[in-house]
Amino acid sequence: MSKIFVFGHQNPDTDAIASSMAFAYLKAKENNLPTEAVALGEVNEETAFALNYFDLTAPRVVKRAKDEGVETVILTDHNEFQQSIEDIEELRILGVVDHHRIANFQTAEPLFYRAEPVGSASSIVYRMFKETGIALPKNLAGMLLSGLISDTLLLKSPTTHPTDLQVAKDLAEIAGVELEKYGLEMLKAGTNLSTKSEEELIDLDAKSFPLADKTVRVAQVNTVDIEEVMTRQSALESAMTSASAANGYDDFLLVVTDIVNSNSELLHVGQNGSLVEKAFNTTLANNRAFLEGVVSRKKQVVPQLTEAFGKV
Amino acid sequence: MSKIFVFGHQNPDTDAIASSMAFAYLKAKENNLPTEAVALGEVNEETAFALNYFDLTAPRVVKRAKDEGVETVILTDHNEFQQSIEDIEELRILGVVDHHRIANFQTAEPLFYRAEPVGSASSIVYRMFKETGIALPKNLAGMLLSGLISDTLLLKSPTTHPTDLQVAKDLAEIAGVELEKYGLEMLKAGTNLSTKSEEELIDLDAKSFPLADKTVRVAQVNTVDIEEVMTRQSALESAMTSASAANGYDDFLLVVTDIVNSNSELLHVGQNGSLVEKAFNTTLANNRAFLEGVVSRKKQVVPQLTEAFGKV
Repeated sequence: MSKIFVFGHQNPDTDAIASSMAFAYLKAKENNLPTEAVALGEVNEETAFALNYFDLTAPRVVKRAKDEGVETVILTDHNEFQQSIEDIEELRILGVVDHHRIANFQTAEPLFYRAEPVGSASSIVYRMFKETGIALPKNLAGMLLSGLISDTLLLKSPTTHPTDLQVAKDLAEIAGVELEKYGLEMLKAGTNLSTKSEEELIDLDAKSFPLADKTVRVAQVNTVDIEEVMTRQSALESAMTSASAANGYDDFLLVVTDIVNSNSELLHVGQNGSLVEKAFNTTLANNRAFLEGVVSRKKQVVPQLTEAFGKV
Repeated sequence: MSKIFVFGHQNPDTDAIASSMAFAYLKAKENNLPTEAVALGEVNEETAFALNYFDLTAPRVVKRAKDEGVETVILTDHNEFQQSIEDIEELRILGVVDHHRIANFQTAEPLFYRAEPVGSASSIVYRMFKETGIALPKNLAGMLLSGLISDTLLLKSPTTHPTDLQVAKDLAEIAGVELEKYGLEMLKAGTNLSTKSEEELIDLDAKSFPLADKTVRVAQVNTVDIEEVMTRQSALESAMTSASAANGYDDFLLVVTDIVNSNSELLHVGQNGSLVEKAFNTTLANNRAFLEGVVSRKKQVVPQLTEAFGKV
């Protein structure tokens, strides 16, 4: 049997990397599958902190599977094809482990699909370790914990599921770390934005969504100081406008999230400002709006945009 | 919390009915959800036999959820919207339990989705009973067994998964029936086609598939005597042509499956006979072709048609 790639989404975040690494390990142990965890992009600073902390190396970056002779893949932490590997439509999808909506996804044949509306794909992978009885190594437990902390902003995001609290406790114990202390340290490692260009910032954690007949790009960055990021507003807007022109985005939203106070500032460029205002019941001033209590792109941004832009 | 409908696909077969009944029961017990199993059509004779055998009544038939004040639904044994309840696009999909390919399906929010490439949705529902530790009542075990037998033609179809053999044994024991004896009796109850009009026959177990820019209808009937069914060929062709005109099908395929010898005869009307020939590497004579060893629409018909009609 030839190799099976296991990977999270493009612009990988910690949950994408952690869930793919741990699930690749699980399937190798449980079903003797020739899995290899790979990544669809370089890891960010937060993920690098976690990998380093648990003495692991980042999965290698691949862009296309067929170039490497790989025909079969497993997706974690995503399903939408435009967030996946470039040649996804030519591959056999053996399985998916995800915690997002399902859209822009289809297969010709039956597959394994495990989705739960919980805080992270890492939470589901941990549950599958428990169900199968396969022992979870300490360092992979640390990565799964990091994935969960990252996606839920240390269990504060509304995407946090009641069951995630116990999952976090379990994982912290197996990994041998103090949840709060480790979590804050890891999240802060991801907020060092000063060394990044505006082009890098808007691509750090960005996803495209086809909404009705529009393509909307939604990027998110975490910070401990929104205003510090916003001193770069005009350069960010230029980068967003250029990226939109180059990639055909109708609108580009940058969500700058304050991880300490759990709020966000929205920055928008594009044609459909009025739909964005409708989505968040707000008014854009100088292309910006403060979004009280908003920290989750998945739960507090994308559904609202989907509704405002109209269903396809 | 208002009621949650749980249902299988249109033109329900035994697996659709069984999986929805048992899963509605499981979610009521496990999560205290206000579920009601309903059906998107009248049950067929095979399913009626099973329900009667296990002293259960058929779920009531509904066509739209909103008309009944229901906003939230759980799908079993299907996911494609064109096989689902009429107002599916206006509803919240809480979860899916399925064993088919994923296509023509999308949600605005994260959900539970459990798919496995096994012989029946009933097999997965049984596994979930085991995982949760909720006791499976004898009569629902009988229905799940019936769903598995129906979809796999008594474990002979290539869609049968190695794990299904043990599932069938377990379920037969809980239900208190002899697997082979009960299974053949049930399958035969579904092959009494003489009382059915041609219009009924071609709609008994029929699904529509959008393939590239075409809509292809694929109906299947089980029999113990293919030639007996084919004495009605010209009347069947008329009914298929009328149904195509009324519903905009580009092609209509009727797969007449011999459940004893595990072969099928294909009858085709429509514009794309050459693509159908390409799909099955055969030649249509008098609109017909014998398909040696073909018994599974899901595994031996739809993927081949998808390939021949070209990917979307």
